[in-house]
Amino acid sequence: MHAYRSHTCADLTAANVGDTVRLSGWVNRVRDHGGILFIDLRDHYGITQVLCDPDSAAFADVEKVRSEWCIRIDGEVKARDPELVNPKLPTGEVEVFIRGIEVLGAAKELPLMVFGDQEYPEETRLKYRYLDLRREAMQNNMKLRSDVVAAMRRRMWDSGFREYQTPIITASSPEGARDFLVPSRLHPGKFYALPQAPQQFKQLIMVSGYDKYFQIAPCFRDEDPRADRSPTDFYQLDMEMSFVEQQDVFDTIQPVIAGIFEEFGGGRKVDQTWEQISYRDAALWYGSDKPDLRNPIKMQVVSDHFRGSGFAIFAKLLEQEGTEVRAIPAPTGGSRKFCDRMNSFAQKEGLPGMGYIFWREKTADAVAQELGISVKEAQAKLKSGEVAGGMEAAGPLAKNIGPERTEAIRQQLGLGLGDAAFFLGGKPKAFEPVAGRARNVIGEELGLTDLNRFAFAWIVDFPIYEQDEETGKIDFEHNPFSMPQGGMEALQGDPLKVLGYQYDLACNGYELVSGAIRNHRPEIMFKAFEIAGYGEDEVNKRFGGMVNAFQYGAPPHGGCAAGIDRIVMLLADASNIREVIMFPMNQRAEDLMMDAPSEPQNEQLRELRLRVLPPEN
Amino acid sequence: MHAYRSHTCADLTAANVGDTVRLSGWVNRVRDHGGILFIDLRDHYGITQVLCDPDSAAFADVEKVRSEWCIRIDGEVKARDPELVNPKLPTGEVEVFIRGIEVLGAAKELPLMVFGDQEYPEETRLKYRYLDLRREAMQNNMKLRSDVVAAMRRRMWDSGFREYQTPIITASSPEGARDFLVPSRLHPGKFYALPQAPQQFKQLIMVSGYDKYFQIAPCFRDEDPRADRSPTDFYQLDMEMSFVEQQDVFDTIQPVIAGIFEEFGGGRKVDQTWEQISYRDAALWYGSDKPDLRNPIKMQVVSDHFRGSGFAIFAKLLEQEGTEVRAIPAPTGGSRKFCDRMNSFAQKEGLPGMGYIFWREKTADAVAQELGISVKEAQAKLKSGEVAGGMEAAGPLAKNIGPERTEAIRQQLGLGLGDAAFFLGGKPKAFEPVAGRARNVIGEELGLTDLNRFAFAWIVDFPIYEQDEETGKIDFEHNPFSMPQGGMEALQGDPLKVLGYQYDLACNGYELVSGAIRNHRPEIMFKAFEIAGYGEDEVNKRFGGMVNAFQYGAPPHGGCAAGIDRIVMLLADASNIREVIMFPMNQRAEDLMMDAPSEPQNEQLRELRLRVLPPEN
Repeated sequence: MHAYRSHTCADLTAANVGDTVRLSGWVNRVRDHGGILFIDLRDHYGITQVLCDPDSAAFADVEKVRSEWCIRIDGEVKARDPELVNPKLPTGEVEVFIRGIEVLGAAKELPLMVFGDQEYPEETRLKYRYLDLRREAMQNNMKLRSDVVAAMRRRMWDSGFREYQTPIITASSPEGARDFLVPSRLHPGKFYALPQAPQQFKQLIMVSGYDKYFQIAPCFRDEDPRADRSPTDFYQLDMEMSFVEQQDVFDTIQPVIAGIFEEFGGGRKVDQTWEQISYRDAALWYGSDKPDLRNPIKMQVVSDHFRGSGFAIFAKLLEQEGTEVRAIPAPTGGSRKFCDRMNSFAQKEGLPGMGYIFWREKTADAVAQELGISVKEAQAKLKSGEVAGGMEAAGPLAKNIGPERTEAIRQQLGLGLGDAAFFLGGKPKAFEPVAGRARNVIGEELGLTDLNRFAFAWIVDFPIYEQDEETGKIDFEHNPFSMPQGGMEALQGDPLKVLGYQYDLACNGYELVSGAIRNHRPEIMFKAFEIAGYGEDEVNKRFGGMVNAFQYGAPPHGGCAAGIDRIVMLLADASNIREVIMFPMNQRAEDLMMDAPSEPQNEQLRELRLRVLPPEN
Repeated sequence: MHAYRSHTCADLTAANVGDTVRLSGWVNRVRDHGGILFIDLRDHYGITQVLCDPDSAAFADVEKVRSEWCIRIDGEVKARDPELVNPKLPTGEVEVFIRGIEVLGAAKELPLMVFGDQEYPEETRLKYRYLDLRREAMQNNMKLRSDVVAAMRRRMWDSGFREYQTPIITASSPEGARDFLVPSRLHPGKFYALPQAPQQFKQLIMVSGYDKYFQIAPCFRDEDPRADRSPTDFYQLDMEMSFVEQQDVFDTIQPVIAGIFEEFGGGRKVDQTWEQISYRDAALWYGSDKPDLRNPIKMQVVSDHFRGSGFAIFAKLLEQEGTEVRAIPAPTGGSRKFCDRMNSFAQKEGLPGMGYIFWREKTADAVAQELGISVKEAQAKLKSGEVAGGMEAAGPLAKNIGPERTEAIRQQLGLGLGDAAFFLGGKPKAFEPVAGRARNVIGEELGLTDLNRFAFAWIVDFPIYEQDEETGKIDFEHNPFSMPQGGMEALQGDPLKVLGYQYDLACNGYELVSGAIRNHRPEIMFKAFEIAGYGEDEVNKRFGGMVNAFQYGAPPHGGCAAGIDRIVMLLADASNIREVIMFPMNQRAEDLMMDAPSEPQNEQLRELRLRVLPPEN
């Protein structure tokens, strides 16, 4: 018999009754039922009930084991009494009578229980990650992640791509975040950088004629930690292809991503048609370039209805150039209670408040005021039908702008009885983020957001440049390597009007994928950099490897990268990236289990010719 | 029609004759045949001949293109004249008459020709890697590498393993080489390390209950460059499994590795049975712990034949403790010319020479000397059969030790007429490496080494400890995490006699795989470290994460790691690792194309609170 097991803890069924078996695993739970010890023995594959009665020679040893001890048992498979069969367990028809036991690894007192659902502080979970990872939810998340990555690979191969590995210890590849540096021992004073993404390398692979590249690529960004981002390293599904236009990239990657969500989404609906929404429309409609489209709310410009109106705040605001008023329609949100709650939300976001109108059944109060009669009389008239009831617009805003403008707004927004609308004004760039968050809250609170769905859209037509409001300086909005729509000609005109062949994939409020058709023409690239204030020397210095390569027969190419952690997070329905990473850093970019980062040895610093300066400097 | 291509350059056949097509690719070659321009248009998939005659409107533009320009052409597919069909090309039945052309990317004058077999200095190849990578041999190597890695993954999944990713920015995981350090910005003065291997993490994954782990894992070692080793990052097929013994690991990984060699070995023979050879026997028989078993030569101890013999050098040597004389049999090497050549080899290796004996037809010279007659008379007697001819042992060694000992040696080694044997003496540790190299040279020069074979053997029973000859200090021979054979009990005795459950896989003279059954018992681990002079505090400090984990129910586990670069090197029949890595560093650990390593920005150093010291310090 094998030294440790004849079967896994998921294998035994009624067919094994009478067999002598050997199992190894962890003690999930021990229970004492009338002197008989029952152990749920757990391994990676399942759980088997094993038991020992006081007559057994092994009893004294079995009695010593505790939760999470790793043990090997020999025993005999017996059928459970029919009333004791556990249909939830694949092994639930049998139990194993222990004849011998060996303790493979004892356990000290546990800082964290593996069995059960008790919650623990994150620091405890990360410090004792090896216990945390034994818990069922984590085992499922890790298996899911592993399966998702394998499925990505399979789908990319099936689409004609090959995986090529790019260097990790290399030169800086600026993607807008900070580089991690690696000091060189052979060249003291010089540093390598870890790649923020294999951007330059994958473009070089295209210039090298490999046509279709992908990689499950480790990426490194020295970023301040956030819940949906690892503070050190993370993985992307990175891909690039030659001789393509934007739509070709979409047509290639959509089946891969959609397939993953269908395969692992647990039956949640997956959009089959992915709308293409311009960056500008996304900002207008959703207040975000990664809108949550499970939420049907679309914002609209309603400036005209407020221009010169009795609502002085907006009327005055609209006299300034570049301002707008936008409405967030809130179907079914037509109650003062809800509107007030949203108003508080706006105040928490730092706004003075959020104007609103809601449409309700006409009240006796309103009728009384309208006709100059008492409320009681009004109630009677409404009841008798002498005065018609129906819908009325409520809220201070409606009063200020009057019934006609109010009705025009209602009609524009397509709202009716029981609905509400919220209003924000100013320069769009300034209020769009709050508007976007308000839209999310409204969708969720009113139950409009379909939580059982993965909603996808391509956000396209990103501007190449943006202007700093204060300095007026023009810089790249996203990524300097994207091809401007219209090429060289477009760069001769107003740079702020130049759009790029650049795109993101939004899913449920996250940016899942980002990519572009690249600028593979050196002359257009130099011009694009010149507009952002980078001279040819600077470009050669920072991106010399790639720019040189473009002078030796570069093909048109483009691609994208998908964030694996976020995809798995969505599939696992987790709200924190650390739930889907085996050994994550904590929020301070520390590994408490392995003690990283830590003090270097003097010898190491000496070899690198480095000195750590005291904090004062 | 698609913007860039209706077909790839490998697609068109006689079935397409008459079609209007669009192709994109690189100009492999342009030829002018009587005014007609012929272009071999190349993409990742193949080559198609396209041509343009002076009547074509596109001629003026086609005339401008040069080698490695990236172009798109529109044209009409025509059948080639039967005598012009090229059966070597899948597209050899057709050619495309160019009707229109667009230059997608022009090329400057080329520092390196893609077409043809011209060799270039490595620095040129690495600086213009994007051109080098377009060459057919490199395209094949890169595709092979990609396919091998994918096949490894498939085979591991098929064997019940899942791939889990371990951290890259993490703590030091000492494997005997230097760590690359990464300074922390959030914790100035502290450093992360890049993992030399995911050793500790994979063991933690076992303690976490995942049963079977693998990863195509990036590894980082700050090593001085060598031809078969990357100076920075490289990839391993890393695997680990729980509840196993050594043989289980062999049984799991052998089909994976053998399968890869069968799948990609180009028909070379792949050993089906992998012998297990102890570390000690490998040193004795082959002078190496990574023997080339395509070479049938096995060395033998022949000390007894020299003890007290007339060959004073060996006789005297053998009086010292711990010395031995070993023979390298050289079947078919029985000529003075060959023996002299091997003697020169030994001198180049820094030895005074290498004793030898060879067996040849008895010469007239020898008969003359033996019988005290003239050479002429001896020739006559040999010819007439009056004196029997036959075999004689030649070489100074044979004379010194006399015929009986010589014959005993011959019989022990199983040699005969036309064979030779070489002899080395001293302390085995000192001469084994030279003996091993001599064995390789003999095997190759005599054509004994079967170059058409992948020869595998497990090297097992490595000693856990070694003793420093000078200081007498005992230290780990290999890896401190291996389980000693005999467990705690064995550690109570002579440490130098303790063997480990530790193994390497040798293939054709390379170490392809290395692994061990791990020491999962904290008490045995502390004892093992104590013997090597590391106190409990030191162990906790250096390996705290793992040692702590072992106190919470650690399962027995073991595994191994296979070097991917070396495997692909063997399969591609390349002698340099840089032939199978897409963007390798040069031998000084520099990337000449991307300019790495390079000077950091002052701002970066300031954020990390680091100062680079001048060379004097």
